Amino acid sequence: MSKVRVHNLNISLDGFSAGGTVTVDEPIGHARDLFSRFDGRVIEGVHTVDDPITADRAFYSLWGQGIGVEIMGRKKFGPQSGPWTDDEWIGWWGAEPPFKTPVIVLTHHERETLTFENGTSFHFVDAAPEEAIAQARELADGGDIRLGGGPSSIRQFLDADLVDFVHLVTVPIVLGSGVSVFDGGRDVHDRFDIESVTTASGLTHQFWNRRR
Amino acid sequence: MSKVRVHNLNISLDGFSAGGTVTVDEPIGHARDLFSRFDGRVIEGVHTVDDPITADRAFYSLWGQGIGVEIMGRKKFGPQSGPWTDDEWIGWWGAEPPFKTPVIVLTHHERETLTFENGTSFHFVDAAPEEAIAQARELADGGDIRLGGGPSSIRQFLDADLVDFVHLVTVPIVLGSGVSVFDGGRDVHDRFDIESVTTASGLTHQFWNRRR
Repeated sequence: MSKVRVHNLNISLDGFSAGGTVTVDEPIGHARDLFSRFDGRVIEGVHTVDDPITADRAFYSLWGQGIGVEIMGRKKFGPQSGPWTDDEWIGWWGAEPPFKTPVIVLTHHERETLTFENGTSFHFVDAAPEEAIAQARELADGGDIRLGGGPSSIRQFLDADLVDFVHLVTVPIVLGSGVSVFDGGRDVHDRFDIESVTTASGLTHQFWNRRR
Repeated sequence: MSKVRVHNLNISLDGFSAGGTVTVDEPIGHARDLFSRFDGRVIEGVHTVDDPITADRAFYSLWGQGIGVEIMGRKKFGPQSGPWTDDEWIGWWGAEPPFKTPVIVLTHHERETLTFENGTSFHFVDAAPEEAIAQARELADGGDIRLGGGPSSIRQFLDADLVDFVHLVTVPIVLGSGVSVFDGGRDVHDRFDIESVTTASGLTHQFWNRRR
């Protein structure tokens, strides 16, 4: 059975995984520091950069292993809300989205599928978590399902107990405010076996595996 | 420039990475315990098994990332020595070698190239380390070069300062005797930046990156 996985989910010491208000200039709100040690260049493998192979990079490179589809919240796709008024907007990433698989964008507002030459396609779907997972599985061609965020999107799947794996990265900074993946999720940790590893950079990587 | 990399090199507390005498029944000598926590099933990705995604498995999965060729010592290919007398021997792995790339087998004794349907081919080469690297690069199609062992083979490349990266795994056991990758290699560590990470299993993973 394919897994539902979360990768490279940063969390501050005070529990926030994104800033508050998202704008075109600040896609992750005021939470830039959460991503300052994240090397997004190695998500397809540590060999894709000429830099040292570190434990952090090894963990980041899990992102695409065996993934057949991503599910993301609308805020990860763009800063707009309400009905789509700007069909020119094709996501934060322009003509080369890094996903290279189908992507389900959760939204209450319909829009035609967008397809890119590198294998990425955005499917706009109005569905509850269970239904979104079912649709994702059809698109995944046997691969695993990655929940891409943001945090409030991941929270819905955690609340519904639909998540098999979370790679959570504690970044030793304090944001003061923002969006949490755990709001109202008391005791969610009881459902998982959790391994923690701290690397030379000062990041603590946690591997949450759903108990069977 | 492509890197010369070593992955999943186990070492006991007393410094051994393989047992002494290699036979058909004991391909790694008496050093079985060195490999008891190694999950060779995930060398192509953590998604290839239905088990938890752990830090250990994440590190093991670096094995194939961006690799275009392997160089191995003759003892990794088979227990024989001297001229080839048994052309039926096609390696320890039978018809499905896990490499799926060209592999250079270092030997003083010529033999015809063996080719497998899954992309693996064994090329039998009599060459010093520098020359072996040059030939490997031609076979690698732009990919990195993995040194596959055994330990005495890796030692020759370390002594010649031809290694860019080593993933060394300290296994908390005592072997008493065996083959070391560091015999006579005093101060080899000075040429590398070294990160150490201990995981929940009790293994300590070290990432050696050659200083530039």
